[in-house]
Amino acid sequence: METSFVQTLKAAVTQEWDAIKRGNFWKLVLNHTVTPELYRDLMIEIYHYTKHNSRNQAATAMVEAPDGLLKFAYHHAADELGHERMVIHDLESLKLWDSATLQRKPLPATEALIGYLYFVAFKYGAVARLGYSFWAEDVYEQIGDALGKIRSDLSLADRNMTFFVAHAKIDEKHIDQVNDCIERFAKTSEEQALVMQVARTTIFLTGQLLEQVAAQHAK
Amino acid sequence: METSFVQTLKAAVTQEWDAIKRGNFWKLVLNHTVTPELYRDLMIEIYHYTKHNSRNQAATAMVEAPDGLLKFAYHHAADELGHERMVIHDLESLKLWDSATLQRKPLPATEALIGYLYFVAFKYGAVARLGYSFWAEDVYEQIGDALGKIRSDLSLADRNMTFFVAHAKIDEKHIDQVNDCIERFAKTSEEQALVMQVARTTIFLTGQLLEQVAAQHAK
Amino acid sequence: METSFVQTLKAAVTQEWDAIKRGNFWKLVLNHTVTPELYRDLMIEIYHYTKHNSRNQAATAMVEAPDGLLKFAYHHAADELGHERMVIHDLESLKLWDSATLQRKPLPATEALIGYLYFVAFKYGAVARLGYSFWAEDVYEQIGDALGKIRSDLSLADRNMTFFVAHAKIDEKHIDQVNDCIERFAKTSEEQALVMQVARTTIFLTGQLLEQVAAQHAK
Amino acid sequence: METSFVQTLKAAVTQEWDAIKRGNFWKLVLNHTVTPELYRDLMIEIYHYTKHNSRNQAATAMVEAPDGLLKFAYHHAADELGHERMVIHDLESLKLWDSATLQRKPLPATEALIGYLYFVAFKYGAVARLGYSFWAEDVYEQIGDALGKIRSDLSLADRNMTFFVAHAKIDEKHIDQVNDCIERFAKTSEEQALVMQVARTTIFLTGQLLEQVAAQHAK
Repeated sequence: METSFVQTLKAAVTQEWDAIKRGNFWKLVLNHTVTPELYRDLMIEIYHYTKHNSRNQAATAMVEAPDGLLKFAYHHAADELGHERMVIHDLESLKLWDSATLQRKPLPATEALIGYLYFVAFKYGAVARLGYSFWAEDVYEQIGDALGKIRSDLSLADRNMTFFVAHAKIDEKHIDQVNDCIERFAKTSEEQALVMQVARTTIFLTGQLLEQVAAQHAK
Repeated sequence: METSFVQTLKAAVTQEWDAIKRGNFWKLVLNHTVTPELYRDLMIEIYHYTKHNSRNQAATAMVEAPDGLLKFAYHHAADELGHERMVIHDLESLKLWDSATLQRKPLPATEALIGYLYFVAFKYGAVARLGYSFWAEDVYEQIGDALGKIRSDLSLADRNMTFFVAHAKIDEKHIDQVNDCIERFAKTSEEQALVMQVARTTIFLTGQLLEQVAAQHAK
Repeated sequence: METSFVQTLKAAVTQEWDAIKRGNFWKLVLNHTVTPELYRDLMIEIYHYTKHNSRNQAATAMVEAPDGLLKFAYHHAADELGHERMVIHDLESLKLWDSATLQRKPLPATEALIGYLYFVAFKYGAVARLGYSFWAEDVYEQIGDALGKIRSDLSLADRNMTFFVAHAKIDEKHIDQVNDCIERFAKTSEEQALVMQVARTTIFLTGQLLEQVAAQHAK
Repeated sequence: METSFVQTLKAAVTQEWDAIKRGNFWKLVLNHTVTPELYRDLMIEIYHYTKHNSRNQAATAMVEAPDGLLKFAYHHAADELGHERMVIHDLESLKLWDSATLQRKPLPATEALIGYLYFVAFKYGAVARLGYSFWAEDVYEQIGDALGKIRSDLSLADRNMTFFVAHAKIDEKHIDQVNDCIERFAKTSEEQALVMQVARTTIFLTGQLLEQVAAQHAK
């Protein structure tokens, strides 16, 4: 039986996640009691890139793409607009947010992720960016155990985790649309190579984001 | 009584339209029988820029802007996606469309309008682009007499003019939103100067588009 | 004998210049005494776009292009850096410059030219921009009579016209390089169509710049 | 005595290099015999990003910057144009180059570095990119020991290492210019923060490039 491109992509993503799970962030979260400061520092990086995810999704319109794909990109961008405010809400609900924190520059991996995704938008366009959406929308499958440990160690309720709760719900709907878009719009081997390249590059940067957060809390 | 920025903008736009109406396109349409070829050549230029209007609207997300304005830009971009196909439909309904026509490059004024609006998107952003939406959404008020003459000379039914009919309807809703966005998001004198600059530049280019179409049919 | 692309391009440019010379700016300059204010208003628009010409030349590096062409673009960009200061110098030498003048926004045609050339840089790249260099470097052949009339009416010495004097000299060298680059790098019909499109669009906008300056001084 | 920004930057860069030297690439090179394949795989990644370094340097002209800085950027870009061909030359001199190798996509860290630098060019401009030049021009101080080990293990002559030999020479001149530009053009705390952010992000990505090359040859 032939392997579809989506299956190949899925396998590559799983392999990258396996590597991330052998890293220091995962060890820190699973083998030690998670501190409020670790959670805060993680959420701040999430805040930084989330602020740009809607924008760099819509900005893919800089590059010629089929209408059906742009329609998805616009709606998806609209769905994610302002989600970084949930991060602030969640940190405030735990008294972990302050204005000094807000001023901190993103860590290098976060900065690279933000910049790279704008590059993807204006240079590669909407088909290529599907490589990011593909795994980002499906992230809860991978981070469930770490997130559960954080929740339990910090006794977090749903109202302290609105960012993750809301996204888990939204993403359920999105993931099918992303798969569908990949099947419809990433047909040539060149397009598929680009989707794969963006998937691998963004998951690598996200893994490094976690490592850099962990390095701030090295035991 | 103080004059609001929207009123100042409206006055500037009206002045530009008055100049356009003293031009050759208006004379050609109002003082001579409109030929199918003139209508076709006009619609082809409209086809060219319409193909990009949704895209350069969404691409404004390249530049930092308030969420409320981006939300408008995304939805507006989604509303206008694929509208160039109405132009094809209308020309086909009149047997005025052929593939050679499709291959023609845009006229210089159309090309400049398309390129300038991408520049506005990636360099100035969503606030500045409101200067284009402001008058483009309200265009039917200005072009009513010329459009009526074309319709009458060519005995066009609504089904031959779906592009204009659909837009007149959509734009009724949009114009209030555009005015509202200008009032909410173009507050500093710098922002207002940018909105004005984009309004004047795009209406100038559109006027030239009409002149260049007219020049192809000079009597 | 076959007509080369450069010859075709040259013919198109000449045709555009002929149209410009039938316009109001040419009439105003050749049939009336040129006022200092007309010269100043012309030079201010030249100031505006000149400020960006070096930049949008180098910025073509955003798009993949052969090294030989980029090398030309970089050196050419370096040669033109800061030339807008010559305009200030020239106006100051005639006591025609003041800070209020400096604050004026470019006229619509100038603004469109500036924006379009950044779009060309960012989206089409260095080959396409040769269409602008092609005629802009060779402009003195076309504007000689108008420039001579301005010089004579205002009794300008070389030291009041450093911008034009310097450019005439630099451009002599550049024009051969531009022709050479077009022959080497604009080989496919697609590339040549793009060069032609940029040539026609930028000369159209420049013609309109002249018309809009003239309109401010209509007799 | 006050610490200058260049000293602060230098200290940050040294700290990042120290971290890289504790990584797997350094261990692999210094503690094991370097294989031709490791050298080839390193050089291929260098090939990929070098191909873009001239371009994303010139493309900084997209963003307003002082003429003195753009002049540096243009000349620097011209100096580095085509240097990726030295990599091909070096690998060919060792019979390590083949066309299949050429087709390989950059590793994720290399891809992120390339994309991020175009983002820096397009969005932040020439001042910010000095953060990359600052440490990249001075890299030989840091990589001397690893490079010496590679040279010795593979018995490389200067003619097999033209890329590194040429760069070491060019960069001697450049580093003073870069320091000078930082002192002249990165004066506000905002500008300096941007230079620092770009320095840290690009050195992080380069470190990861080395790690990913090492991972392909894990012992």
